[in-house]
Amino acid sequence: MNGISIGLLGLGTVGSGVVKIIKNHQDKLMHQVGCPVSIKKILVKDIHKQRAVEVDSSLVTTDPDEVINDADIDVIIEVMGGVEETKEYLLTALKNRKHVVTANKDLMAVYGSELLAVASQNGCDLFYEASVAGGIPILRGLADGLSSDRITKMMGIVNGTTNFILTKMSQQGLAYEDVLKEAQELGYAESDPTADVEGLDAARKMAILSTLGFSMNIDLDDVKVKGISSITEEDLAYGKQFGYCMKLIGIAERDGEKVEVSVQPTLLAKSHPLASVQDEYNAVYVYGEAVGETMFYGPGAGSMPTATAVVSDVVGVMKNMRLGVNGKSAVTPQYEKKLKSADEIFSKYFMRIHVKDQVGVFANITSIFSDHHVSFEKILQLPLEEAGMAEIVVVTHKAALSDYENILVQLRDLEPVHTIKSSYRVEGSVKS
Amino acid sequence: MNGISIGLLGLGTVGSGVVKIIKNHQDKLMHQVGCPVSIKKILVKDIHKQRAVEVDSSLVTTDPDEVINDADIDVIIEVMGGVEETKEYLLTALKNRKHVVTANKDLMAVYGSELLAVASQNGCDLFYEASVAGGIPILRGLADGLSSDRITKMMGIVNGTTNFILTKMSQQGLAYEDVLKEAQELGYAESDPTADVEGLDAARKMAILSTLGFSMNIDLDDVKVKGISSITEEDLAYGKQFGYCMKLIGIAERDGEKVEVSVQPTLLAKSHPLASVQDEYNAVYVYGEAVGETMFYGPGAGSMPTATAVVSDVVGVMKNMRLGVNGKSAVTPQYEKKLKSADEIFSKYFMRIHVKDQVGVFANITSIFSDHHVSFEKILQLPLEEAGMAEIVVVTHKAALSDYENILVQLRDLEPVHTIKSSYRVEGSVKS
Repeated sequence: MNGISIGLLGLGTVGSGVVKIIKNHQDKLMHQVGCPVSIKKILVKDIHKQRAVEVDSSLVTTDPDEVINDADIDVIIEVMGGVEETKEYLLTALKNRKHVVTANKDLMAVYGSELLAVASQNGCDLFYEASVAGGIPILRGLADGLSSDRITKMMGIVNGTTNFILTKMSQQGLAYEDVLKEAQELGYAESDPTADVEGLDAARKMAILSTLGFSMNIDLDDVKVKGISSITEEDLAYGKQFGYCMKLIGIAERDGEKVEVSVQPTLLAKSHPLASVQDEYNAVYVYGEAVGETMFYGPGAGSMPTATAVVSDVVGVMKNMRLGVNGKSAVTPQYEKKLKSADEIFSKYFMRIHVKDQVGVFANITSIFSDHHVSFEKILQLPLEEAGMAEIVVVTHKAALSDYENILVQLRDLEPVHTIKSSYRVEGSVKS
Repeated sequence: MNGISIGLLGLGTVGSGVVKIIKNHQDKLMHQVGCPVSIKKILVKDIHKQRAVEVDSSLVTTDPDEVINDADIDVIIEVMGGVEETKEYLLTALKNRKHVVTANKDLMAVYGSELLAVASQNGCDLFYEASVAGGIPILRGLADGLSSDRITKMMGIVNGTTNFILTKMSQQGLAYEDVLKEAQELGYAESDPTADVEGLDAARKMAILSTLGFSMNIDLDDVKVKGISSITEEDLAYGKQFGYCMKLIGIAERDGEKVEVSVQPTLLAKSHPLASVQDEYNAVYVYGEAVGETMFYGPGAGSMPTATAVVSDVVGVMKNMRLGVNGKSAVTPQYEKKLKSADEIFSKYFMRIHVKDQVGVFANITSIFSDHHVSFEKILQLPLEEAGMAEIVVVTHKAALSDYENILVQLRDLEPVHTIKSSYRVEGSVKS
């Protein structure tokens, strides 16, 4: 090969990082792939916009056809974001037999299977390591490192914004709204933080991870989602008192042939490897039947970590080009999708209730739990400042989700129960 | 290909694990490599020994030639251990154009470069993921995931025995000898624990890691080693008081073109990702210029984790066989070895000294530090129970190793200094 030409879709912070790395690492790239690598064309929205990196003005265009239909371009790097239009560009590129590297989780979570199939039909690579936890080579870890194992559980802190917020709330005892505001000022949260704080961003990543890890086509709609916006300082304080810390955890679990995938605020035992993942960092914990517990930790976002993952994927494409084996590394889902029903999902739960402090109420409440065969790991009753009211806090032993949901319904109907203040999944055990 | 035949050298716990995985994962292996995989011959020392797995007696032999010189065998898996004789077997196998997968760190740390060169000359793969931190795909992580980055620092907890001992000492306030005994009873430490507790095992792994991560031929002799056998409860208690925990850390650091590699007991700031790695777990922390901090965590040893890593490597070999590209993935060291001298190695240090409690001794001691341009982050003087004696504990700011060593020499010569009780490297900062 004389040289490899790249077409870049997007020149934001990640795109600029990609340009920098390709410029600064020419020697290393040459050593690895055996020929020079250059960027031939860059699609941007605004040609005159100031960029974080200098590029020759002749490289920049606002016309997508100049990139995706240029016969000289071998590899398309997509870092422009967006879903519908971007998907059309990539389909055109793949049909033109261009390999594609993308950092776009929104796109891969929804159209990943379709795009991978088209790539495979056209003998093209489609790599997307940067779409999940940018700085962590987790997709390669799943595909290669554990290729002779059976993965039964994945737990991920895969959203940096929410982990930053929960870390600050926990360390400084601050309210959600105050920390969100600080995170927005620091650039860790967007002005509209919904996709992050309501768990959608994490759900997309869990759909991508579980599809690969379980070799099963998990759609975004299959992922149950609950965000962090209703978490209070009191919840964190009780969690801490019981030996847990609050994290937004994506959990993908397999029992036999059936799986469950969810993203929800979870009280995690402090001894769990994920519990020490602080600030905006991400980590994915993987349990394999043979290998046991492993964890991959690193920056989840940021322009340079994400750009590094993108260029690593480009190196993978180029090695395959040199070997003439593109389009063969995509592993198609091997198993039919089977989701667990609510009576097959087992977990421990934390619940905090405000009740009228009257005779028999404690017995009433606990008997609702025992009627549904749910027992307690911890239970605590305290008087509230408001006269005649009490707070009950429980951590259950493992219970079926269906039983737990029925308990919630019955508690809401029970007259002395004023409010169910909060309810969270609990992972791991705390030695007392 | 009709099928792939494997020759196994060794049938201990790891070898038995390999046999089990290949037997239980035939479907998955078929799906990945496109043809059946079978074990054709197994070299053992004693044919009649009871094994953890059932194998047909016709497969077992005590004659190495029946394995390494069998023309039908495609891949040799070496899990027998040993260095000199084992090296000869593998050289023969490679010259017979058999691919090799090994879990043998002792061998790879000493003869890795030679074996990789012979493999490359013969168009063979030589994979050794299982030789470093069995359950963690760290070598693939270094080679692939970070291929467009520049790694400047690696820190590893790469020995499970010592991490188990230090964890127990720290959690339970026990003495080294007592915990070592417990570890031996539990099977976490061998009856002769020297290679583990004196840091040699970790040094082998750091030689392998730094050779790959820095693309530089680091020999075992280049790794400075200090073990954990002289660590006391007092050291751990002071460390804890200052916000540090004690770990046996392998550190490989690069500044410009020069590197340093050492294994030594290190007081690590509790906020560091490695600080929460407990018990027999291993983890490797990698700092790349672009990606920043990443960490790979998992079981460092154990028959099934190690066997899983071995089989993953075998899958890699078989994929390359199908593609006809064996022997091309070994990356030869790109840079000439340049080691830092003692005046180019900078670190913080912890020191604990017993002195005669007389007028001016504190000033004497601190002036020796300042004469060598070393300043203090923390300093503490306490009376000892023994009349007329005091204990001085310091944590320095960053200092050149040469200066620090000169300070040690001068302190030993200072009359009021009774003993230098301990001296450790310190990593990371503790916010007060």
